[in-house]
Amino acid sequence: MCGVFGIFGHPEAANMTYLGLHALQHRGQESAGIVSSDGERLFGHRTMGRVQAGFSPADLATLPGDRAIGHVRYSTAGGSHLKNAQPLGVDYARGSLAVAHNGNLTNHEALRDRLEARGSIYQTASDTESIVHLIAMSKKEALRDRIAEALEQVEGAYSLLFLTEREIVAVRDPRAIRPLCLGEIEIASGSGVAHVVASESTAFDLIGARFVRDVAPGEMVIISADGVRSEFPFAPEPRKLCIFEHVYFARPDSMIQGVSVYEVRKAFGRRLAAEQPVDPGDDLVVIPVPDSGLPAAIGFADRARAPFEMGLIRSHYVGRTFIEPQQSIRHFGVRLKLNPNRAVIEGKRVVVVDDSIVRGTTSRKIVKMIRDAGAREVHVRISSPPTRWPCYYGVDTPTRSELIASSHSVDEIRSYLTADSVGYLSLEGMVESVRSLEVRGGDAGSPRPSADSYCHACFSGSYPIPFTPASPNRQLRMVSG
Amino acid sequence: MCGVFGIFGHPEAANMTYLGLHALQHRGQESAGIVSSDGERLFGHRTMGRVQAGFSPADLATLPGDRAIGHVRYSTAGGSHLKNAQPLGVDYARGSLAVAHNGNLTNHEALRDRLEARGSIYQTASDTESIVHLIAMSKKEALRDRIAEALEQVEGAYSLLFLTEREIVAVRDPRAIRPLCLGEIEIASGSGVAHVVASESTAFDLIGARFVRDVAPGEMVIISADGVRSEFPFAPEPRKLCIFEHVYFARPDSMIQGVSVYEVRKAFGRRLAAEQPVDPGDDLVVIPVPDSGLPAAIGFADRARAPFEMGLIRSHYVGRTFIEPQQSIRHFGVRLKLNPNRAVIEGKRVVVVDDSIVRGTTSRKIVKMIRDAGAREVHVRISSPPTRWPCYYGVDTPTRSELIASSHSVDEIRSYLTADSVGYLSLEGMVESVRSLEVRGGDAGSPRPSADSYCHACFSGSYPIPFTPASPNRQLRMVSG
Amino acid sequence: MCGVFGIFGHPEAANMTYLGLHALQHRGQESAGIVSSDGERLFGHRTMGRVQAGFSPADLATLPGDRAIGHVRYSTAGGSHLKNAQPLGVDYARGSLAVAHNGNLTNHEALRDRLEARGSIYQTASDTESIVHLIAMSKKEALRDRIAEALEQVEGAYSLLFLTEREIVAVRDPRAIRPLCLGEIEIASGSGVAHVVASESTAFDLIGARFVRDVAPGEMVIISADGVRSEFPFAPEPRKLCIFEHVYFARPDSMIQGVSVYEVRKAFGRRLAAEQPVDPGDDLVVIPVPDSGLPAAIGFADRARAPFEMGLIRSHYVGRTFIEPQQSIRHFGVRLKLNPNRAVIEGKRVVVVDDSIVRGTTSRKIVKMIRDAGAREVHVRISSPPTRWPCYYGVDTPTRSELIASSHSVDEIRSYLTADSVGYLSLEGMVESVRSLEVRGGDAGSPRPSADSYCHACFSGSYPIPFTPASPNRQLRMVSG
Amino acid sequence: MCGVFGIFGHPEAANMTYLGLHALQHRGQESAGIVSSDGERLFGHRTMGRVQAGFSPADLATLPGDRAIGHVRYSTAGGSHLKNAQPLGVDYARGSLAVAHNGNLTNHEALRDRLEARGSIYQTASDTESIVHLIAMSKKEALRDRIAEALEQVEGAYSLLFLTEREIVAVRDPRAIRPLCLGEIEIASGSGVAHVVASESTAFDLIGARFVRDVAPGEMVIISADGVRSEFPFAPEPRKLCIFEHVYFARPDSMIQGVSVYEVRKAFGRRLAAEQPVDPGDDLVVIPVPDSGLPAAIGFADRARAPFEMGLIRSHYVGRTFIEPQQSIRHFGVRLKLNPNRAVIEGKRVVVVDDSIVRGTTSRKIVKMIRDAGAREVHVRISSPPTRWPCYYGVDTPTRSELIASSHSVDEIRSYLTADSVGYLSLEGMVESVRSLEVRGGDAGSPRPSADSYCHACFSGSYPIPFTPASPNRQLRMVSG
Repeated sequence: MCGVFGIFGHPEAANMTYLGLHALQHRGQESAGIVSSDGERLFGHRTMGRVQAGFSPADLATLPGDRAIGHVRYSTAGGSHLKNAQPLGVDYARGSLAVAHNGNLTNHEALRDRLEARGSIYQTASDTESIVHLIAMSKKEALRDRIAEALEQVEGAYSLLFLTEREIVAVRDPRAIRPLCLGEIEIASGSGVAHVVASESTAFDLIGARFVRDVAPGEMVIISADGVRSEFPFAPEPRKLCIFEHVYFARPDSMIQGVSVYEVRKAFGRRLAAEQPVDPGDDLVVIPVPDSGLPAAIGFADRARAPFEMGLIRSHYVGRTFIEPQQSIRHFGVRLKLNPNRAVIEGKRVVVVDDSIVRGTTSRKIVKMIRDAGAREVHVRISSPPTRWPCYYGVDTPTRSELIASSHSVDEIRSYLTADSVGYLSLEGMVESVRSLEVRGGDAGSPRPSADSYCHACFSGSYPIPFTPASPNRQLRMVSG
Repeated sequence: MCGVFGIFGHPEAANMTYLGLHALQHRGQESAGIVSSDGERLFGHRTMGRVQAGFSPADLATLPGDRAIGHVRYSTAGGSHLKNAQPLGVDYARGSLAVAHNGNLTNHEALRDRLEARGSIYQTASDTESIVHLIAMSKKEALRDRIAEALEQVEGAYSLLFLTEREIVAVRDPRAIRPLCLGEIEIASGSGVAHVVASESTAFDLIGARFVRDVAPGEMVIISADGVRSEFPFAPEPRKLCIFEHVYFARPDSMIQGVSVYEVRKAFGRRLAAEQPVDPGDDLVVIPVPDSGLPAAIGFADRARAPFEMGLIRSHYVGRTFIEPQQSIRHFGVRLKLNPNRAVIEGKRVVVVDDSIVRGTTSRKIVKMIRDAGAREVHVRISSPPTRWPCYYGVDTPTRSELIASSHSVDEIRSYLTADSVGYLSLEGMVESVRSLEVRGGDAGSPRPSADSYCHACFSGSYPIPFTPASPNRQLRMVSG
Repeated sequence: MCGVFGIFGHPEAANMTYLGLHALQHRGQESAGIVSSDGERLFGHRTMGRVQAGFSPADLATLPGDRAIGHVRYSTAGGSHLKNAQPLGVDYARGSLAVAHNGNLTNHEALRDRLEARGSIYQTASDTESIVHLIAMSKKEALRDRIAEALEQVEGAYSLLFLTEREIVAVRDPRAIRPLCLGEIEIASGSGVAHVVASESTAFDLIGARFVRDVAPGEMVIISADGVRSEFPFAPEPRKLCIFEHVYFARPDSMIQGVSVYEVRKAFGRRLAAEQPVDPGDDLVVIPVPDSGLPAAIGFADRARAPFEMGLIRSHYVGRTFIEPQQSIRHFGVRLKLNPNRAVIEGKRVVVVDDSIVRGTTSRKIVKMIRDAGAREVHVRISSPPTRWPCYYGVDTPTRSELIASSHSVDEIRSYLTADSVGYLSLEGMVESVRSLEVRGGDAGSPRPSADSYCHACFSGSYPIPFTPASPNRQLRMVSG
Repeated sequence: MCGVFGIFGHPEAANMTYLGLHALQHRGQESAGIVSSDGERLFGHRTMGRVQAGFSPADLATLPGDRAIGHVRYSTAGGSHLKNAQPLGVDYARGSLAVAHNGNLTNHEALRDRLEARGSIYQTASDTESIVHLIAMSKKEALRDRIAEALEQVEGAYSLLFLTEREIVAVRDPRAIRPLCLGEIEIASGSGVAHVVASESTAFDLIGARFVRDVAPGEMVIISADGVRSEFPFAPEPRKLCIFEHVYFARPDSMIQGVSVYEVRKAFGRRLAAEQPVDPGDDLVVIPVPDSGLPAAIGFADRARAPFEMGLIRSHYVGRTFIEPQQSIRHFGVRLKLNPNRAVIEGKRVVVVDDSIVRGTTSRKIVKMIRDAGAREVHVRISSPPTRWPCYYGVDTPTRSELIASSHSVDEIRSYLTADSVGYLSLEGMVESVRSLEVRGGDAGSPRPSADSYCHACFSGSYPIPFTPASPNRQLRMVSG
């Protein structure tokens, strides 16, 4: 998963992009980058790790101009090297070009073979580089036409931001798999508005921008000194928003496709309580796995008429590296981040609500930890269906063999987790939950979603776009720092 | 506020102390330190900033031995310099001695004058150094007697850990103002138990230790190869636990004086709903200021029969330094950390629950931010009385003139915050809330608390120990890095 | 100026390359990089700054395999960004390829225009990237043929090392402008020798390798598991070794073109004393500007029969950044690095010997500093002709307007420096000096050098290869970090 | 060895001290520190490593005031910890006090026992702390009297700088073992002069200060707003300047006791050539071990009428840590720093001149390296007598068992070094060499030195002050970071 942010026409473009990336930090902490332009040249800074650690005031001062794009990146197959950090910036015949990409191209292998056969060289392990080659090779005159010609040869999921000396171009793939939305912000001097574009609307909140609307499926938005212009260069495809954005990726205070992520998650929790109830009783308590399970747990508790409690306390001070003791400590890895709150668990039948189970190892530790803290029963409730299939559209999921649900029944999972029961929300339940919510804002007129409106391949194995799994060796030939 | 941790008889004493400090990190992020001993010498490492950033595996490898003490420090008057980081370690006639201190001595100025007049030199700005001078000057033979003689000359709040080559001595002041508790942990090899002591019980959870009991008021616990021995060298005083530990300082998963901090805070919230109700209605919603206001908000919502929602979303990626934009962004400083969740606020009458109001500036931004997100009404509820008086017992509170409640009535505060109403919990309400809870564990037999059982000077101005405010110049003469 | 190093068939290839770069550090301190291969993939690490600071043992551990190339880079027009650090590594149709380049292409602008017009993208500001594009586009089968085809389209100065999974290819341009030499090192296990290639022979000394010979003009050396093979794919050109390698760039303990750099410099000094004598006398003393002027000063003193003394003491602790006092200190910038040794200067007529004068500002400070230390006369002697023309073959010289000798006569320079006299060595004197020395080693049979054997454009303006000065804007469009 | 610097009355006192320490960096690279004062408080910053790395402009900005002292420290028994870095700063009854110390107290053990018995605590492993305790305990009124009373109880070598809010006091022990000198610098604004004091006069050169004179044996110099005042509070003792300052410690451009260090070393070399001649001949060449052996080699070559050459080239890029290859490389450790210059060595009889031999391991590598480079004979000449005894007056020499000359005859040393001959300068030769030089400056009137004027205990075992070797355990009980 990655996050992108762009702004045009703001006197503090790089600073605003820094803040926007800060608000999108949950979408990727492996690397971050900003490229700005003063209308004549492009200026870039990229860094491993988080935005805050890698961008000093001095770094930001090297990024002049009133337009900029930025990117935060989560670890993916390309490997954790600075050269894979984005935005990717190049010079070519028409000038300079920087690109920030959230998503994944499914025909990347074939594209790369074709481009390499023609003599192209690759300096990164990223599929984004193929897009840039295609743009550079296009014979079209206007940037938007070159981008359109390039993307017609591309398949997969993409929310893309391009920056040149003169404009920002934002493109969302025809199925709108990854989110992307538009906003605007008033300039203090009263000289009009700056236009902003971001993966999630929460990035607008931080900088005081107004949410305008989602970028439409297959839409290309061109932002320049002439204002904002919209084009639809691609053949239409059925909308396929990644349903996992609702489940986990997006921040709860974001609006995606016209609905509040928080409200969706709460609705998931309510529906989950209906589909997978637990016997009522005074000794029942509903606790979230914080922070991602929190809204669903509130919804579950509300529907189950059981008290909602913070039964697991999350530490705010957990970082990346850690010194492991030689002596085994029970549930150690999880305990650093989460500690059971014995006062609300002891003697209780505990429903613990989480958004998903990937490998099951963490969930198993959590179940055992809760039981050690005195719970009489531990009931695991998951606000999405079993995660059985890998994602090929930009999420760094494990292989099938690592996904516990791809080889275990729910009862086998229950047994592995040592839980008293395990219950998942159904796919239908998810879709019904979203349908039940009012659509607001720019998407108010959109049709109500159905299961067909989403990509739910990770649950169903029903992939909306065919793909060839990449040979890892192929991409990683050059392992460079 | 500070946190202390000690362990005796564990093969990985420094690693365990590192973990214990990690669990106590909320009590101080300015500096951290560990001193260990192998029975012959003492080994120390101290660092500015957080435990995780400042202790590498290589650093821990320089701390051998099966006994260690550690300290995390919040910024105090001594100034943010490494030399003020603890544990403080010295050599003196009897060998080596390291000390970790949570609290503050109220007669420190007089002590220092007396000691300096005698020829003592001070290398830190900390009152802890006076304790060490007094110990070194004692003519008593046994360490415990020298410590007792030293502490008899000292007034104020202290939870102290001493480490020598041979023993750990833990002491809590006669009024037991700052928390301190004992635990034990089984050694993997089956060779018995290691004894642990910490500011809060949550530190035991992380390392898999068992909570045994709170250290009693005025108790001195001596831990050595001979086991654990307890003495009561001081004249008894009425118990005066800092009530703000219940309100804010302690982690919710800790037990303090036999009650769960989480349960206390929830009870505060319930009582607050009774004392300071808001008109009921379908459009009422109760939201916490996360994370500290969370348990009280759950309690308030429960009693008010109004839905509890996460109306403010907290960012996990906020650090210390930040790049401020030149253009003003509304509520910017707060928004970096908290973003309103419009979906649960818009069109609602919002009760926002927080633990306390200090200067009022942050609360004012929060109120405005919630109203900007569409709230029809904003009712501020605080799960403690107005904070009117500075603390002289170890908390780094602002001066009176900065405390909004020391110069403003509740209605004036409401007006400043631009809230529709503001309601504080009464001191009686607090005490009743604690009384209503069952006392568990080692403190099960203790008498039920009354208002007299607490130090509530920050609310009442009723200081249990007289003090002379320190002249800041006096302590800061030598400003050294 | 840059330095390159390569090794094939050594079990510690990356470590040896690290050491080789360490020995070549004087050729560039801006960035350093190593790419190694295990026969299947390439592994890279690049860093800003010096080799020692940027390569930790952990970094070296990420560079497996028995073959590697490395590069140290001096600041050039490309700008000081990590992306411009070398070796440059790419993937293309035939696998992976890494390149390390010392030199500069004179037709780079035209090449880049042609390649961009074809659709090529540039991710660095370096001319080396054009070479890689040309190789990738070649239809030839064998790497050596692709390299030859690419380099036939290229003009300028280059000593190049290429690394693929299977081989190292070393190429020196037909005029042999930049140095490059071959060596071999015995493997401890007795399993034969590893082949090494480096900008200067001093890199062989450090790792215990044996100097074999210089790479010949226009020679391509292919080193693989099959051994070392030599080809001459280019039309022959007259040899044009950069004469400034003798004057300044190379380390004195290196052999270049069969002569010792130290001996050459001493011979320059002797000849300089003959061409530009100073009145003899007991009060005459000859001092070098350390360290570069040292051998020439020894030669000058020897011929002039005047004592050689260390009249300027060099500090070993000068780094890059420095804190300048607000108050002016006389000769401050130079004094940090050099301090006059009053004891050997006071009351003397001082001949100060340096290798060249660029802007004249430093020389002026040195002259004044020597006079302040009590010298009766200060005579500046330079062991090369006036530097009047910029270099287009890989040296980062200032523009003409900054070169004092391009706009000032020797007497005007004397006046600016406030010296009693200034004397430069003639170009003829330089060539005669080299001719006078015995040629050793692999180049023993080479013809004696004449002025035609060298590139001396910086002195004479006689450029052996035509060039178009690059438009700086052109290369720096994308300013990226 | 350590270096001290102080300045009073300069608007940029901390910056000047930074520069002064930079110039004294050769006297210690382990830690550095500055304490300044604005007349009311003291401000300090200390750091491990070199001045340049550890003092940023931001750090210097925290050091206001027109008076400051600084210290650079070489690793000593106290251990490499920040807490042992100087200046040591304390608060005591009379205010604040900072101390910088070059030297070592010989009665430190006894002092510490006495002070600890009285109740003093030690926070460092340094003997300097005892001086501060003694000052704090003095009942005298004036600082100078307290210092005098303290130092009367102290034995050993010391050049001390004290800083209080009001004055700088500089003291040199009665035997004047460690150097210390006075200077003055004009203030740009024309408002008079600032007074400076430093271990060596080269520190004055860098900041543009004028050397005034050496501090006299047993002299106390008090610098305040009232100007400079001198006192002699101690009973006179025979002068015993450390002769090793002439041999190695001091920078060659410094004046010590009225003679140029460079001239002394050259005179040592001349005398050495007379005492330990090598058969003359055209194939004879004299080379220094750079940089310390350089002046003596020039002197030797001059007297021996043999050419002086740079036969060993020193790398400027050697740092502290290094990555050692697994395969053995001949002479590796030395080669990183020094590379033989084959061109001047091959086929020659080589005299290699160094200042001293400590363990012999490095010298042995150098001899072998020179022979490998083709020397026909290698003659080692040392410009001081055999180093047989440890120093107890502030130099961090190895124990006797590590000093090769304490257990080996000269011929055995020759055999170990694999040299053709080894020759040391005699102690008489050293003294005669110094006597032969003209004494300049403030010391012009001093009596000519005799062997009695020096401490030469490291050569002779004749210790001018009795000492008790410190028990290492004693000092290192508290090993703290």
